[in-house]
Amino acid sequence: MAGRPGARHAEAVLIRTATGADWPAIWPFLRAIVAAGETYTYPRDLDEATAREMWLLAPPGRTVVAVDDDGTVLGTAKMNPNHMGGASHIASASFMVDPRYGGRGVGRALGTHVLDWARAEGYRAMQFNAVVETNTGAVALWKSLGFQIMTTLPEGFRHPTEGYVGLHIMYRLL
Amino acid sequence: MAGRPGARHAEAVLIRTATGADWPAIWPFLRAIVAAGETYTYPRDLDEATAREMWLLAPPGRTVVAVDDDGTVLGTAKMNPNHMGGASHIASASFMVDPRYGGRGVGRALGTHVLDWARAEGYRAMQFNAVVETNTGAVALWKSLGFQIMTTLPEGFRHPTEGYVGLHIMYRLL
Repeated sequence: MAGRPGARHAEAVLIRTATGADWPAIWPFLRAIVAAGETYTYPRDLDEATAREMWLLAPPGRTVVAVDDDGTVLGTAKMNPNHMGGASHIASASFMVDPRYGGRGVGRALGTHVLDWARAEGYRAMQFNAVVETNTGAVALWKSLGFQIMTTLPEGFRHPTEGYVGLHIMYRLL
Repeated sequence: MAGRPGARHAEAVLIRTATGADWPAIWPFLRAIVAAGETYTYPRDLDEATAREMWLLAPPGRTVVAVDDDGTVLGTAKMNPNHMGGASHIASASFMVDPRYGGRGVGRALGTHVLDWARAEGYRAMQFNAVVETNTGAVALWKSLGFQIMTTLPEGFRHPTEGYVGLHIMYRLL
């Protein structure tokens, strides 16, 4: 579909390692997503310094950005060990897509990349600890990438408009 | 049964807040439990400084010790928020009982105390993130205290002699 007039959704999505120079592009949409309080178990008033430290990970973690052909940052993901010791073969990851660039496969591209990274790093499984059940788009995406809802913690998340909703734990072997 | 000859198991178990002065009593059995690698998702070679920092929590977390009438430390527990933001009403906790003092209700006393603490602090639920399925004593204890196995992550834990075993996520509303 490349070249079709208006085919913004067909633009390439490139994934590359994030650097500190990407932070100014990440922070506005990350802040907005966190402040909305609907999908992430972060404090809604998360300050920038804490957010930067939480999001831009050093090894063994890793943070990437999804960019388009012009280098515009469309989304970001971080990936890291989920546990230590005898469970250190389980990875985790978190994802933020700029709402202005939703619906063009950025989340899927990031998810696929993260799974490839985890396999390459020798992890045996990936676990998402806290997927809000009302975040149905994310739930459907992770299911399509092979994750299962292992359980839903009742009243696990206080949604700003829905009240207490369930919190999914999603998992897949790699 | 107090005063019965040899009735060590009938001694009182007192729970109190841990201080830095308790660490030298905690570290030997905590180290041994972690080094065994059978029940905790900590690095088996955990060094003392890291262990101390991980175990002795400042508010909003808390760490307690279980002591007998003589002040001997029998076990310890730490308790803390399990999530942030919209899931910050879920607490977690971790427990270590000195194997020399097993079978006298120390774990149960600590578990009961932790649940009371979580209720008093206003938490709505408690979640244990990683209970090794072969740790059947702990699983039975938490079930008896009202926890359910919400799911078992397949191959979630690499046991030193059993190989890959499941990792339970246990949960109860308060």
